[in-house]
Amino acid sequence: MSGFAAVDVIRAKRDGHELSDAQIDWVVDAYTRGVVADEQMSALAMAILLRGMTPREIARWTAAMIASGERLDLSSVSRPTADKHSTGGVGDKITLPLTPLVAACGVAVPQLSGRGLGHTGGTLDKLESIPGWRARLSNDEFKSQLQDIGAVICAAGDGLAPADRKLYALRDVTGTVEAIPLIASSIMSKKIAEGTGALVLDVKVGSGAFMKDLAMAQELARTMVQLGKDSGVTTVALLTDMSTPLGLAVGNANEVAESVEVLAGGGPADVVELTLALAREMLAAAGVDADPEKALSSGAAMDSWRAMIRAQGGDPDAPLPTAAHTEVLRASQDGVVTSLDAYGIGIAAWRLGAGRARKEDPVSFGAGVQLKVRPGDRVRAGDVLLELRADDESRIPVARDEAAAAIVVGTEQPATAGLLLDRIA
Amino acid sequence: MSGFAAVDVIRAKRDGHELSDAQIDWVVDAYTRGVVADEQMSALAMAILLRGMTPREIARWTAAMIASGERLDLSSVSRPTADKHSTGGVGDKITLPLTPLVAACGVAVPQLSGRGLGHTGGTLDKLESIPGWRARLSNDEFKSQLQDIGAVICAAGDGLAPADRKLYALRDVTGTVEAIPLIASSIMSKKIAEGTGALVLDVKVGSGAFMKDLAMAQELARTMVQLGKDSGVTTVALLTDMSTPLGLAVGNANEVAESVEVLAGGGPADVVELTLALAREMLAAAGVDADPEKALSSGAAMDSWRAMIRAQGGDPDAPLPTAAHTEVLRASQDGVVTSLDAYGIGIAAWRLGAGRARKEDPVSFGAGVQLKVRPGDRVRAGDVLLELRADDESRIPVARDEAAAAIVVGTEQPATAGLLLDRIA
Repeated sequence: MSGFAAVDVIRAKRDGHELSDAQIDWVVDAYTRGVVADEQMSALAMAILLRGMTPREIARWTAAMIASGERLDLSSVSRPTADKHSTGGVGDKITLPLTPLVAACGVAVPQLSGRGLGHTGGTLDKLESIPGWRARLSNDEFKSQLQDIGAVICAAGDGLAPADRKLYALRDVTGTVEAIPLIASSIMSKKIAEGTGALVLDVKVGSGAFMKDLAMAQELARTMVQLGKDSGVTTVALLTDMSTPLGLAVGNANEVAESVEVLAGGGPADVVELTLALAREMLAAAGVDADPEKALSSGAAMDSWRAMIRAQGGDPDAPLPTAAHTEVLRASQDGVVTSLDAYGIGIAAWRLGAGRARKEDPVSFGAGVQLKVRPGDRVRAGDVLLELRADDESRIPVARDEAAAAIVVGTEQPATAGLLLDRIA
Repeated sequence: MSGFAAVDVIRAKRDGHELSDAQIDWVVDAYTRGVVADEQMSALAMAILLRGMTPREIARWTAAMIASGERLDLSSVSRPTADKHSTGGVGDKITLPLTPLVAACGVAVPQLSGRGLGHTGGTLDKLESIPGWRARLSNDEFKSQLQDIGAVICAAGDGLAPADRKLYALRDVTGTVEAIPLIASSIMSKKIAEGTGALVLDVKVGSGAFMKDLAMAQELARTMVQLGKDSGVTTVALLTDMSTPLGLAVGNANEVAESVEVLAGGGPADVVELTLALAREMLAAAGVDADPEKALSSGAAMDSWRAMIRAQGGDPDAPLPTAAHTEVLRASQDGVVTSLDAYGIGIAAWRLGAGRARKEDPVSFGAGVQLKVRPGDRVRAGDVLLELRADDESRIPVARDEAAAAIVVGTEQPATAGLLLDRIA
């Protein structure tokens, strides 16, 4: 009779009705157990994408995804906890400097991260470019590192929200990724299940982001903030610009290097600005009064980074992998960089080998794009605009075309909207 | 790369765009070959259901489904050909008397039929209650019987529109049946592929039909008539009432018996009326001037029936199966039958064993509902309203409740809209 029930749930949503709590609980559980088939869930996901869900439905769907697995209990951690989640962007390495920085200020950061798919990079892929570093920790290792060092970045265990893992893979191949109820419940089910006390969301907006449009991003942010609050997690969202890459490094090892520069007190201004803004939000959400700028300049954040990397087997002093082949792209005329498109640069880095097309693919740690200019910079003909790095030389020509199309040298200074677009609490 | 292309097609339809000819050809072919997965096609089907398709898209989708298999060539048949398709109803045995009747008038009828699923019966299930009769014919047997006798009712071969067979089964379990583009292309791809020269559609409207609503049924009829014309098949649609069952017999063997009554010059008035109306349309569409009433009264239609049944191994004189258990439902008060709901009677017959819940289930030939009254009939308390027939006695109580709820004895004569609601050509 399960087939009948699945069709009834699909039809109800298809015809614009609100699903009942019982329907949502049943369909998420039955899908996790394989009783509802992939082709039924994908039809339901499409109906959800096109018909939407009420706040009550989204909350219940999220709860059902959390209930599909274990929920971590971090009450044994003596410090307050706060986590950050970014909806994903190009050159977005902020988790790397942010996690140890916030830990250095007295808040424990239980950061369960993912891998990259498509043109946006993954935090775990970046950290794996550090020799020896391992992404997988047991729940006990995770909690004790959180207690001892205050900073953990690792892979989410299989026990956390298995319904989401299964549904996410399905949405990826069925054109049902871009549904706000499904995006919000996917993110929030994992973050609530991991047990964090506070959560700061970095919702990216622009060509390099999932949400191209501010109004959609605001709706997603409001939905997620409400879900967090309903579950007793203090949740704040910053909406930040992703029309241009963050910083100068887009790849894996080069993003680690740029993160270490920030921890050393340097690094690109936008990366520093966003890291500090998110750190302040996390500290405030966790109820801790501390100055993250001081933790950067004192070296405390760098100490926390080194301890965090070492605790997971990594050598913070080991040289990072480099790519076998490098080619530069030069300006063909004098002028000013009027546009540097995040999506185009992300695609170029992906084609160079920094990302993967399928979940099974390996990434090339040294591959990526190293920018030499930022929007607004003045250049002369012949100046290097960016470097293309790849282990496989044959990947460079196509990536070069993508990168060349993504950077415009013109005559007028570009208008800058600033990095922080909105804040939703 | 096929996964990427499937997602692109799904996204395009999801976002309300018109699919290109190349996209439609590719996705239908790739789905038939298993390159596009079921979970991708079901998401696309849901997007088509909710976003619709333009006439151009529907025509191309139909052509792609025809191209997925073979197309029969009936040019060797010396008579003109005409077929009929009903969208399905309760007690709809019209194909049985109609096919030999039209054949007796000089038009060959290549009727490829299906089996019942849910509350509507299937022509092949009904005919299989005749001892010895077989539904499967080779293409050569089909053509030679069409030439020699002029009447064939048999199962569609596996070679005909395999894309439709696969997609139909998928739609059934994914809540994507009720999409006009998909219904129209499913029906018309099979009918065009079977090679008929003319086609009359009986589009049912009302509680016992797929289309509950006249406007939807008109849209479906217009879409199908256009598809037929575009493919060179003279196509006409009658929209007919399915708020109450056709005739008095709902089941399998009892529907055969009622059909034989009609061929013998008797039978319920509504079955005779619809059989003659469809016969006149088929003859006109095939360009043959003949009087089907004469073919009924002369016994020519009955001769054609007997020849058709014999040609497929059946014995037209053998007693038909009867059910092991019979129970009657009686009127609890004097009055007039104000309502006899097709859907409720269809469900009752289905529960008694006349239909199947899953494709693999057998049907019970003797099971079903035998009505003793029609809307408008006067009854006295204690009069028999209908008989419930089942091989498995335990099926009767639930069916009895369904049937009792479907028949209303009141005080006022019901308004009758008539059987023929519209004609679209």
